[in-house]
Amino acid sequence: MKPNGKIKLLFATKNQHKVSEVNKIFNSKYFEILSLTDFAGIPDIEETGKTFEENALIKATVIYDKSGIPVIADDSGLAVEQLNGEPGVYSSRYAGEDASDSENNAKLLEKLSGMPKPHKAKFVCAAVYYDGQNKFTVTGELHGEIIGQQRGNNGFGYDPLFVPTGYSKTLAELKPEEKNKISHRAKAFGKLEKILIAKFFDEKE
Amino acid sequence: MKPNGKIKLLFATKNQHKVSEVNKIFNSKYFEILSLTDFAGIPDIEETGKTFEENALIKATVIYDKSGIPVIADDSGLAVEQLNGEPGVYSSRYAGEDASDSENNAKLLEKLSGMPKPHKAKFVCAAVYYDGQNKFTVTGELHGEIIGQQRGNNGFGYDPLFVPTGYSKTLAELKPEEKNKISHRAKAFGKLEKILIAKFFDEKE
Repeated sequence: MKPNGKIKLLFATKNQHKVSEVNKIFNSKYFEILSLTDFAGIPDIEETGKTFEENALIKATVIYDKSGIPVIADDSGLAVEQLNGEPGVYSSRYAGEDASDSENNAKLLEKLSGMPKPHKAKFVCAAVYYDGQNKFTVTGELHGEIIGQQRGNNGFGYDPLFVPTGYSKTLAELKPEEKNKISHRAKAFGKLEKILIAKFFDEKE
Repeated sequence: MKPNGKIKLLFATKNQHKVSEVNKIFNSKYFEILSLTDFAGIPDIEETGKTFEENALIKATVIYDKSGIPVIADDSGLAVEQLNGEPGVYSSRYAGEDASDSENNAKLLEKLSGMPKPHKAKFVCAAVYYDGQNKFTVTGELHGEIIGQQRGNNGFGYDPLFVPTGYSKTLAELKPEEKNKISHRAKAFGKLEKILIAKFFDEKE
């Protein structure tokens, strides 16, 4: 069953960087990506989930119920092995509800101080598709380690402390294009795109 | 996030032909297919949906709630263009609740009598995956036409009346292996397998 024309997807974000990243991943032959900047009256959504998947699903459900348009959404964060997966879903508020990136980074280094190196860690992104009937999640991961001091000015969050496996630079030292190629978000949305093409545009039919 | 070992899937059917068909489609490197013959105490499920997707989702939900194992399920039938998609979800009970294949076939021919040929039709299969959180449907279609009299002894249902586009034989005249290569069910489960591999075993990670 092929749809007539492109599939419209509403990406549950107001972040234009994310929108342009996802626009590069989703084949414009098949998909048209809208974002929350195209819609008025979308409420702030509390991320009360215990996992990245749950948070992404919460966003997707709220936005679909408001808009009636098939939604893609994501949630992501850092999981450090020696800290049993912390900061996890608290990544953006590790040092408190309105903590800055540097406060969160400082808290992470404090927690890791005295622990043996390397501090293995991964960035995880859960990406979700929801259309009222179909609901599915995929994850993308970027493995690496946390180093002892911040390096680099690109990116955000824990990027200055994270060196991907096989690299010598931190994510904040990589160019945005380089980061976007290997990122957990790129992997998750890459899978989602593949799955949606298989679902809606399988060539064999 | 790769699972440790194979993914167990419970196929919501007791039909061993379907099980062996799906076993050929799903790569045994990644999946182990169980069926309802492996479980006692599964109730009969009433197919009250208005679409193939709804019926497949009903089966999948009931079986997942009983078993706690990720489920695949399907529902399928015939849709004739001149009859606005009939017999559709009533394919197996077109001539009444306990109608035989030949009663259903007879009713179909009666409905089509006097209508101009060709009687364009398609077999549709909706296949579903459900694991309590993720729920998604795909469809597979086989296009063709309904001819004026039954031919062939293989298959079941409307197979003796259905000639796939590009073929001169009815589905009931094709060998089971030939039918299985082009069937709506093979297409639907082929997509589902592709999607589940992308979700669980993406090579790039």
